[in-house]
Parts: sequence; structure tokens; C-alpha cells
Amino acid sequence: MKLTILGCYSATPRTFNNPTSQLLEVRGHLFLIDCGEGTQVALRKSKAKFARVKHIFISHLHGDHFYGLIGLISTFRLLGREADLHIYGPKGIKEIILLQLKLANSYTNYALIFHELESTESELIFEDETLEVHTIPLNHRIYTNGFMFKEKPGERKLDMNAVLEANIHQSYYRKIKAGADVINENGELIPNERVTLDAPAPKSYAFCSDTMYKPDIVPLIQNITALYHESTFLEQHRHLCEKTRHSTAKEAALIAKEANAGQLILGHFSTRYSSMEFFKDEAQTVFANSDIADDFKVFEF
Amino acid sequence: MKLTILGCYSATPRTFNNPTSQLLEVRGHLFLIDCGEGTQVALRKSKAKFARVKHIFISHLHGDHFYGLIGLISTFRLLGREADLHIYGPKGIKEIILLQLKLANSYTNYALIFHELESTESELIFEDETLEVHTIPLNHRIYTNGFMFKEKPGERKLDMNAVLEANIHQSYYRKIKAGADVINENGELIPNERVTLDAPAPKSYAFCSDTMYKPDIVPLIQNITALYHESTFLEQHRHLCEKTRHSTAKEAALIAKEANAGQLILGHFSTRYSSMEFFKDEAQTVFANSDIADDFKVFEF
Repeated sequence: MKLTILGCYSATPRTFNNPTSQLLEVRGHLFLIDCGEGTQVALRKSKAKFARVKHIFISHLHGDHFYGLIGLISTFRLLGREADLHIYGPKGIKEIILLQLKLANSYTNYALIFHELESTESELIFEDETLEVHTIPLNHRIYTNGFMFKEKPGERKLDMNAVLEANIHQSYYRKIKAGADVINENGELIPNERVTLDAPAPKSYAFCSDTMYKPDIVPLIQNITALYHESTFLEQHRHLCEKTRHSTAKEAALIAKEANAGQLILGHFSTRYSSMEFFKDEAQTVFANSDIADDFKVFEF
Repeated sequence: MKLTILGCYSATPRTFNNPTSQLLEVRGHLFLIDCGEGTQVALRKSKAKFARVKHIFISHLHGDHFYGLIGLISTFRLLGREADLHIYGPKGIKEIILLQLKLANSYTNYALIFHELESTESELIFEDETLEVHTIPLNHRIYTNGFMFKEKPGERKLDMNAVLEANIHQSYYRKIKAGADVINENGELIPNERVTLDAPAPKSYAFCSDTMYKPDIVPLIQNITALYHESTFLEQHRHLCEKTRHSTAKEAALIAKEANAGQLILGHFSTRYSSMEFFKDEAQTVFANSDIADDFKVFEF
């Protein structure tokens, strides 16, 4: 999985700080997660082939997470897009987008397919042969979901030395990779585990922004490969978290630790702090493998 | 008048090209004209004291002219704005903005006052003691207005040598500046023009974007000090103007010439051209005092 941070700062776009947006490349998909104002410019700067984006996931309807969506939709139209575009986001997102297209008399010449979310339970919202996307209900001032991207287990790998030694006809190879026991040329039953190796462990990525500390998401994201968790504040400003429904870096790290995450990526920083390194330092006191996002930083896992 | 171009390119925001927005400083006002996506970042980059903006004029509801408005409104809220904000724009603009504030549960803590426009005749939409703003109905694919900012004539200036020579008591000075004839200390009637000088000529600025060539705006903008007129295309692509309802640089220059404008500023360039100098060259064949806008360029007149 390759994660490109397009923006990771809270509140307002600034000269050098973009609001939230991320691009996740996984199993041939290019998923866009959140789309603050200016995301289309960040996409151009990142040199991403963003015309390939077919699925956009919007966590909630605060401006710093979706004001760039209508502009991106319009730009796709101007660029002559024909491919369907799926948009997953809170109920109301369809009305906003369609109202703007109507008043501009600028309907898209490609299909816009809205998947409006309103459940407060985790839902499977996308699935193909290799991948699933689930919502992660969060606790913010308005209805908000995080998203979990989870590879399905791949096929088992043939252990070619063992396969040849077991004298199995090659017409059975597909079946073996799918996990079946087969009969060899000598009429013997060959147990699958004798001739195959485990598939690479499936990877997973969870995006959790915006939310206050919500430990009940831990079972949903247990053993996640990489967790992005918002940390708007440091512990010294924890009193602001209750009112604004945000988290501190330490709280994000507690979630990562409880979930046994492979790594933690912090983001959605308040711009009141002079250095984002403070967030990393605070998180690492709880969870060692903590790092900070930054606009245009790339994480591969 | 001081005009700061925040963006002057058509269609989509790009890495180095902002969509339309301008800041006009005149007689103590800071007016924002159009507000494409990313305008709030351009305002920061320009170092403008943009919290002083109290009036925003939106020409039409195509994205490259107003997708930045909701973000700016939200940012004003986050910055603790208390002053009223007046928004002038086509009918529908209020519904779009209020729907987004409602779904984000983020109403402004300052008053948002919408002045929705639907007339196809020129209207006086703002007036104070020193200034008027009129709409300029344009011809584009959707309902569109340009805006004319027109200083009112100032007071006449005292010609102090003549005033002293005429032996006028200073309690009459206010009356003289307002244009009255007065009686001097010797009981003689002193004609106003003997003791005053003309006020500086009032200045005016017209913003005309987006529009196809529309010569019937000429009487409205006759003798304008500075005219910004869109020139999306060059003459070589004039066949595109009819369908898209845009103008060429030559057509913009014809309007400037017919209106006897003091100067012409071209903008809203299609990014298909390798150099914007072509626009200037084309316009100057018709109207010598033609110049091109560029992001962050400042014009004083």
C-alpha cells in the first residue's frame, strides 16, 4: 500500500498547509480519502495520475474535509472524464453537489454515483475480489466515519520444489493455489499444506479523522498494518478535546497500542504549534512506531 | 483605486494558475470580486488584510468564480469575525451557502447578508457617500453580471490664495467646498468658481467576466478609468466563443475603445496558450493601453 498525504492540517487552508486529503494506492485502485479545498491543486503537485481515481471517501461534512470535492468533480468534467465516479460520504453530500451542478448548469458527462452513509455501526461499503472497505464510526461534532481498507487474503503460493517432488499434474495448480488437496499422478492424496506456502499477509490501513478518543474502535482495527489517527492537539491542550471532539497525540498512540497497529501516522494538526515534532515525541512515549504526516509525504507499508 | 489580481485564469485551478478573484481597494473599502477555489490562500499570499472585506461580489455560479466562497466564509468564522458580510450574487447562491453551513452544523457567528441578483438590467446594488456599485449584465452560458465601481464626485477644493484675497470668513469654507456662492466680509457676492478648484475627477472600475462580445455594455461603462474584460481566447480560436460564450482579446479591446476606457486589463485566459503576451499583442492592435492581468499583479489607477 502506498499512502500519499495531500494535506494534513486542521481548520483553514494556509499558504503552506493543506487541509485533509490523502491518496491510497492499493491493489490497482487509487482511492481518494477526504478532499479539502485545494485538493485538486495538491493532486497536480503530487504528480498523481488522479484521473484514475474512481472512488472518493468523505469522512464528514466539515469544510476542511470536503470543500474541494465540487471543484474536483468539475475539473473531471472539463478534462473529459467518462469513467464512473463513486462518492461515499454522509447523507446530504449528494444534495450539495447536485445543487451546485444544477445552478451552474454544468452536469457531469460521466456518472456520479453517491453512496450516502448514515449508519452508526461499521458497514462494508466497497468490496471487490481483493479488497474491502469498511466504515469506522467516529465521535466528532457531526456525523463522521473513518475508513478501513483491508486486503483480502491472497492465494496460497505454490512451493514448486514440493509440487514437482509430489508428482502433481499441472492442470491441478489452480486448485492447489485455491487451497485444495489434490490427487497426484500416482493416485495419492496430497495435502495442500505439503505443496504450498502461505500467501503474503494481507495488509490494512485505517483512516480515523476527525474524532475524540474513542477506544471502542479498537476491535474494528485490531492488528491494522498502518493507522492514521488525528491528533489535533497535544496533551497540554487536552481540555479543548471535549468541546471540539478531537484527540491528542497521546490518545492517538493509545488507540494504536491497544489495536496492536504496525505503525501510527499522526495528522490533522492544529496550526497553533510551532513544530509538529512535538506530536511525534508525545505519541512515542506510548507507542514507539509513531510518525507524523506532512503534506506530500509518502508512506509505503 | 488599487486592484490586486488574486487569480485570472479560466476553468480549473492549477499548480501556478488561480481561477478568478480580485481585490479592489477604493475609498476605504476592500471589495472582493469573485472567489474561485483557493482564493483564501491567494489572499494570504497577497498579504491583504482580508478580514477587512465586508462586501463580496460574485459574477456567476460557475465554479472557477465562486467555489472558494464557502471556504472563505468558514475561515472568517474560525478567525472569530464579528462584522457583517454582504454577498452579492446570482439567485441560488444563498441556498448553496446555507445548505453547506447547515450540513456542517457550522453557522457563522457574524451576519451573512445575501443580495441575490436576477435582473437583466443594470442595477445600483451598493451605495454610500462616496461610491456606487452597479451591475453590468453580461452574456454568458448562465446568468452573469459584471460590476462597475464608481466614485462619486468629491467636494470642490478651496483655492486658498483666492479665498484669502476675496476676504471670506472661514465659517463659509464648508459651504464653498459644497459649491455655494457666498457673501464676503465686505458684503460682496463671491461666485464659487472664483475661489475653488475642481475636485479630482472621480475614478471608476468595471469588471466584465465572463461574457461573449456584448457591445451594448458600452454605454454603461463609457469613460471608465479602468476596464477588466475577459479574453479567454485569441482571434485564432474565435469559433469557440459562440459556444462557450467567451471573448477574444481583440473583442475586449473593441469594447475598451468604444467605451473610451482609460486602460484595459485582460484576463480569464485559457491555459491552452504558451504565453499570455499574445493577448496583449492582439488587444494592442485595437486599443493601445492594453495590459494583461497575472496572479498577484497590482494595478493602481
